[in-house]
Amino acid sequence: MTTQHSTGPQHKPVTLLGLGPMGKALAETLLEKGHPLTVWNRSPEKADDLVARGARRARTVAEAVTASPLTLVCLTDYDTMHKVLEPAAEALAGRAVVNLNSGTPAEARAAVRRSEDRGVDYLDGAIMVPPPMVGQPGAVFLYSGSRAVYEQHSEALTSLGDPRYLGDDPGLAVLYNTALLDMMYSTLNGWLHATALVGSANVPAREFAELALGWFMPVVVDYAALARLAPDLDAGHYPGTLSTLVMNLNALDHITRTSEEQGVHSGHPRLMKEIAERAIAEGHGGESYLAVHELFKKATLSKEETSTPLP
Amino acid sequence: MTTQHSTGPQHKPVTLLGLGPMGKALAETLLEKGHPLTVWNRSPEKADDLVARGARRARTVAEAVTASPLTLVCLTDYDTMHKVLEPAAEALAGRAVVNLNSGTPAEARAAVRRSEDRGVDYLDGAIMVPPPMVGQPGAVFLYSGSRAVYEQHSEALTSLGDPRYLGDDPGLAVLYNTALLDMMYSTLNGWLHATALVGSANVPAREFAELALGWFMPVVVDYAALARLAPDLDAGHYPGTLSTLVMNLNALDHITRTSEEQGVHSGHPRLMKEIAERAIAEGHGGESYLAVHELFKKATLSKEETSTPLP
Repeated sequence: MTTQHSTGPQHKPVTLLGLGPMGKALAETLLEKGHPLTVWNRSPEKADDLVARGARRARTVAEAVTASPLTLVCLTDYDTMHKVLEPAAEALAGRAVVNLNSGTPAEARAAVRRSEDRGVDYLDGAIMVPPPMVGQPGAVFLYSGSRAVYEQHSEALTSLGDPRYLGDDPGLAVLYNTALLDMMYSTLNGWLHATALVGSANVPAREFAELALGWFMPVVVDYAALARLAPDLDAGHYPGTLSTLVMNLNALDHITRTSEEQGVHSGHPRLMKEIAERAIAEGHGGESYLAVHELFKKATLSKEETSTPLP
Repeated sequence: MTTQHSTGPQHKPVTLLGLGPMGKALAETLLEKGHPLTVWNRSPEKADDLVARGARRARTVAEAVTASPLTLVCLTDYDTMHKVLEPAAEALAGRAVVNLNSGTPAEARAAVRRSEDRGVDYLDGAIMVPPPMVGQPGAVFLYSGSRAVYEQHSEALTSLGDPRYLGDDPGLAVLYNTALLDMMYSTLNGWLHATALVGSANVPAREFAELALGWFMPVVVDYAALARLAPDLDAGHYPGTLSTLVMNLNALDHITRTSEEQGVHSGHPRLMKEIAERAIAEGHGGESYLAVHELFKKATLSKEETSTPLP
């Protein structure tokens, strides 16, 4: 036993491919937690400071994957991963790959089939936090696909954060990732557009944030209260007791007209209004706003069937 | 002095026009707090239970407004307010009207000019909470326009909740109201669309809510952290140190393609992707995602200038 908490015999070696901002955060965390680390990046100089901190730089992908039973992949997308891994296919056979790129569920499922053909144990994953949060206890990493890989390498995966196994379907990790980011961008756009709207009357973003983020959103759009409505979404039950979709359309019409009057971008509110109108046309007008969930479950009409151009 | 905390001499009489769900909540609150209350509604039977609790029912609007120095208006929109008030114009002269309808800033400003012509003291307002929260200490009501009316009737306005005076410009209350609801609908749509997206792989809304609302949103889209970025919006300063708009476009592309692949509505993510693309085309690609604020500040291009039909 040693007193330093790094490089103890209990930590398995890990290989990491890709040293963008997220890859670097992963590498630094693995080094801090004491995993022998081999890294590879197309531009090798990106590994300079990691090498100074104890990482080993591989010259080729094949050399990199041979160094460890587990290879983490943190590249731009699935195509890049396939191109990078192909020359190392022989070296990878019998070893495990955990992919942390984002993409679509179909791409994740295709990657599983491709890996099976090459005798590689493949687990798909998604990182749900920005680089500075990697390695912290609350940093959620989502995984789906091979439970065997997940369990066999749980120690390394736990070094990176809080791992969650979502199930056998390899598409689930990227699907969850996509859905969570969808929520994030929608919320950010709501804030940024609302700030632009009050900004048109010279209200500073800082002043608006006090009311909007300091009171309105946490109190009126309380996440815990929304979560209590989730069973209604599962049941397709949207009681319009307090307010109806028709009443909400009135508000969405004000938001759209106000955006136009004030000369700010109106594409976002106009689309929200059109979605509410369509849900009403489909018979949900007397239900609560949450009934737009029924519309979201269905594919958008094709371009030929639509009439309203949006920016 | 009496021991009951209702109808003491310190509570001024109030008149209320409009007894929809919100009007009823206002009326009940005013009665509970001890204001002598006169109500009017187009369908008079809506006042039945309020009369049973001590309110006085007026047969005409003129009779209603004559009963109190202050008239609160809670109707559908500005047009309805003008139609309802017009026959009572003489009775209203020299009295105060506080309007709580929603609408657009231009409608609020027009209502001020119209009121001035008729010698009515007019304050514009907006209720930022749903009916069950009215009267509670945290129930924010926004007001703008005549500071004299706001100060003269602050006791009645305080009975309704937490009043905030935003300034002389009468358009500010509805503008804030609109902007806050814009945020609310954007966030709700994000949640509902994300739920539909994971639902396409048979993930229950309830299960998704645990991660999405129980962890991701409160931790990763932390409102207090966003508020600390507000000065950057005021400064037009969007450092892309951690991630750039180009990197975010990659994620928005995954969200759009995943929505299409999974057969759910793709209009919302497609618009978010187009907004990011346009912000990049305008030179913001190396800045952070918040730079889309610059795009939102500008009017949407006219239909003739756009090419992509949605949804």
